[in-house]
Amino acid sequence: MAASPECKLQLVRDHIRPYQDFPKKGILFRDICPILKYPAALTAVIDLFEEEVRRNYQTVDLIVGLDARGFLFGPLLAQRLGVGFVLVRKKGKLPGTTLSVEYNLEYGKAEVEIQEDAVAPGQKVLLIDDLLATGGTLFAACELMKKQQAEVLGCMVVIELKELNGKDKLKPQSIFSLVQY
Amino acid sequence: MAASPECKLQLVRDHIRPYQDFPKKGILFRDICPILKYPAALTAVIDLFEEEVRRNYQTVDLIVGLDARGFLFGPLLAQRLGVGFVLVRKKGKLPGTTLSVEYNLEYGKAEVEIQEDAVAPGQKVLLIDDLLATGGTLFAACELMKKQQAEVLGCMVVIELKELNGKDKLKPQSIFSLVQY
Repeated sequence: MAASPECKLQLVRDHIRPYQDFPKKGILFRDICPILKYPAALTAVIDLFEEEVRRNYQTVDLIVGLDARGFLFGPLLAQRLGVGFVLVRKKGKLPGTTLSVEYNLEYGKAEVEIQEDAVAPGQKVLLIDDLLATGGTLFAACELMKKQQAEVLGCMVVIELKELNGKDKLKPQSIFSLVQY
Repeated sequence: MAASPECKLQLVRDHIRPYQDFPKKGILFRDICPILKYPAALTAVIDLFEEEVRRNYQTVDLIVGLDARGFLFGPLLAQRLGVGFVLVRKKGKLPGTTLSVEYNLEYGKAEVEIQEDAVAPGQKVLLIDDLLATGGTLFAACELMKKQQAEVLGCMVVIELKELNGKDKLKPQSIFSLVQY
């Protein structure tokens, strides 16, 4: 018998491990490594993502995943949907002609890149990452999609840290998260 | 009708794109992004990995993948086999108590890390990455496995650059690669 969505969600929630003061003092880090280590929890993540996609979108052309933890979930979802997976990477990692967008970190700046031919104009894409915090990286990735004239259907994450208001920063994009803190 | 291993391998080979002079002059970079973008090619990679594993090993406890491109293939193989996936990351990315191993780069040093409780003594693991070049990172990952008293069954990569002799560096570990240059 197939597990209910509620049971799957519980399984996911039970495999997120909190770490106080990582990567620095005052931060409560939510670690997704146990999800990857426990195959049924990883299957549950992808099941729940897939159900959400099939419920909401008739056509998805590509899953776009963020370096590096988006790479853990994106190809699995893309294979389930039978579509391609495209990499958004930190600067300097992708060969060929790339497009890039700069964004602000707490101290300094960072840049995300995509290969120029990765997405075609008009393609419908879903962005995926492990976690939504302030939304800086996902916002930059959405800007990359605009540069490629893609249509962003929405962003999917395993975890949303609600107090950091990433959802507001990403408006009007729709955000789907499995677990909220 | 299922495609033959030869056809699957051809599909993989056809979706590796060469770039001259990346990341620097004189290097011919083999880009795996097209494999990810074309779902049948990605399925073929995982099919071929899975067939190799089932042919050679009765028991695999964990797939261990290297940051960041090993994350693209490792969880897919782990899900096929019904086992967990463990992350080997660049230094500073993993919370909690970690073990680390330093290794040499062309200029300077780098370090790989794993969570201390990621692998239990005696567990049988397969290491996975996108590409074997000089073997420095995979060698360091094997050292991490020794520290965890795991049994490394072998290393799996999509691409092997034979002239860089990574296989020699990794002896006596068995290396399985899909495409050799």
